Amino acid sequence: MTGAERLVAACRSRPVDASPVWFMRQSGGSLPAYQRLRANHTVLDIVHRPALAAEVALEAQRALGTDGAVLFADIMLPVSAMGIELELPSSGPRIERPIRTADDIDRLRPVDVAADLGFVLEAVRLVRRGAGDAAAVIGLAGGPFTVAAYCIEGGPSRDQLTARRFALAQPQAWARLMDHITDVTCSYVQAQVVAGAQVVQLFDSWAGILSPSDYAAWAAPWSRRILRAIRSSGVPAIHFVAQGATLLERLAVDADVVSIDAAQPFGTARERLGAVAVQGNLDPARIGASHEVASGAVDELLIANAGRPGHVVNTGHAVPADTPTSRLADLVAMVHDRTAMALPAQTGANA
Amino acid sequence: MTGAERLVAACRSRPVDASPVWFMRQSGGSLPAYQRLRANHTVLDIVHRPALAAEVALEAQRALGTDGAVLFADIMLPVSAMGIELELPSSGPRIERPIRTADDIDRLRPVDVAADLGFVLEAVRLVRRGAGDAAAVIGLAGGPFTVAAYCIEGGPSRDQLTARRFALAQPQAWARLMDHITDVTCSYVQAQVVAGAQVVQLFDSWAGILSPSDYAAWAAPWSRRILRAIRSSGVPAIHFVAQGATLLERLAVDADVVSIDAAQPFGTARERLGAVAVQGNLDPARIGASHEVASGAVDELLIANAGRPGHVVNTGHAVPADTPTSRLADLVAMVHDRTAMALPAQTGANA
Repeated sequence: MTGAERLVAACRSRPVDASPVWFMRQSGGSLPAYQRLRANHTVLDIVHRPALAAEVALEAQRALGTDGAVLFADIMLPVSAMGIELELPSSGPRIERPIRTADDIDRLRPVDVAADLGFVLEAVRLVRRGAGDAAAVIGLAGGPFTVAAYCIEGGPSRDQLTARRFALAQPQAWARLMDHITDVTCSYVQAQVVAGAQVVQLFDSWAGILSPSDYAAWAAPWSRRILRAIRSSGVPAIHFVAQGATLLERLAVDADVVSIDAAQPFGTARERLGAVAVQGNLDPARIGASHEVASGAVDELLIANAGRPGHVVNTGHAVPADTPTSRLADLVAMVHDRTAMALPAQTGANA
Repeated sequence: MTGAERLVAACRSRPVDASPVWFMRQSGGSLPAYQRLRANHTVLDIVHRPALAAEVALEAQRALGTDGAVLFADIMLPVSAMGIELELPSSGPRIERPIRTADDIDRLRPVDVAADLGFVLEAVRLVRRGAGDAAAVIGLAGGPFTVAAYCIEGGPSRDQLTARRFALAQPQAWARLMDHITDVTCSYVQAQVVAGAQVVQLFDSWAGILSPSDYAAWAAPWSRRILRAIRSSGVPAIHFVAQGATLLERLAVDADVVSIDAAQPFGTARERLGAVAVQGNLDPARIGASHEVASGAVDELLIANAGRPGHVVNTGHAVPADTPTSRLADLVAMVHDRTAMALPAQTGANA
């Protein structure tokens, strides 16, 4: 199987010749060509220049040997296209004038994805061309709760209190903001698929702060629309929420794969998710620690999965930028090696 | 029953004439005398002057009518006594020179609680004298994982990655740091009880980032020592961890009360905790929203508890500083009113 086939098949819980591997935020980090680029360009610069963004994604895929090539983009690009001014320091997006009133929402611009976010679509096309069959192109979009919360908080926050107070105090304005973000995101993910994305991950990093009932009221209806848009365009949808243990079953609705964080025991999560495919759970702290600790963590994960189909190997959160490239490459090879198995149609070919 | 009796009895899952109430970070906030103090004093100033710190705690208890008067202090005071220089901006403690090596740990000073933290103990004495029977004095200490992680991170962090990498890379140095923090904290909580604290809450705010197995290896043995020190000094121990859903059963070991955050459904948490008393779960965003939303949230909580003993009404996280005092006072009166019941010995007295 090619890397692209392997990743897509595992997302669909179909048989694979080995478990596919990729790492959240694998594109960039300590890779030499990326570091050279960063000497002269901001992250936003690179993101806006398709040739550079594609090169970052392709460099990472080639250096690590992952089964996915991850689009180098930021989840806040669609709201930037709505007219929200954005900076991208390493601590996370910063918005100078966050949304605070219903009027702020009414002032958001409509977005023409092809025109306003064409640079992302062009990057997707270039990554697809460059990756060939070696890896599936992984498109991405921010979860609507996380994007809306960012717009209201203006920057990273531990509890999204300002956003949650906004949702409570102005439920209609909240729904309008979520509708707008969701409409744009649906077009955006579908355009990414048309441009060549073979899998799309929805990053709803902050939704784990919500209780199951708040999640159902303030996030799920919109997230599900986006997940359905991804699937109806013909590719599998991966759903990621950090610290999402209390929401697990809800995250699985309309998703092909649920990405679980490093704080939940893998076995329990697998059981709760039933037939839905699982990704993640590797602890980025362990991946960065040493070869022994990292490969021990991978071993433990593979043992916990016990060969069940529908398994995408990944970290539970973004890999830190200082993780050695050789470490990640070794882990990819290790996973492919340990999980290699004969497919029914090609007896013994990869065993 | 007096407020002090009510809170202590509920913590011990004994019968009460009404459910006790207090709010995390109730001391301070928007209270007028506190705001006047803050015009001329930093938070650290106030904390270091027992008469001022006690007045802040007492003003809040009187204005809100809570069954607890909460010590106005910071969880980082013990490490400040170890020689770690500390600032306390509103975003949370900042350490200019965080711990990064085993040598940094060896340089930490021993702490003589009576001498080095005598100002806290004096504040406890003054709060006890001022509160009389109206409210139990609630002492506090930081959970050893959170305090150690703060020392290594140097400030607030979403994932405590630097601290977790330290624990993995230098397990013996980590254990030495945890031992030192725990030794000092055990003496500190016991001295608070001698000075008049009638309940002590261990704030391990950040431990929820840990998987159950990492929690067992890197935090639980030390936290349990402190919880046992609180209980062996004769008062109930409340154990608080934010986003702690996956750890719930472990948090209950050696604790009288587990404080649960606002993201977990109350009923599920109650079931998992069995006979252990429960605190928390009210959403600070709702408490701040409006009288209707806040009292609706309290109603829902009381219905979910269904009159079971061992229930302390509180928010799941700190109340935001801008929450109106009158709102909190109304909620306290409402809880006392709705949960009032006859005790076996005083038939009909409060029903």
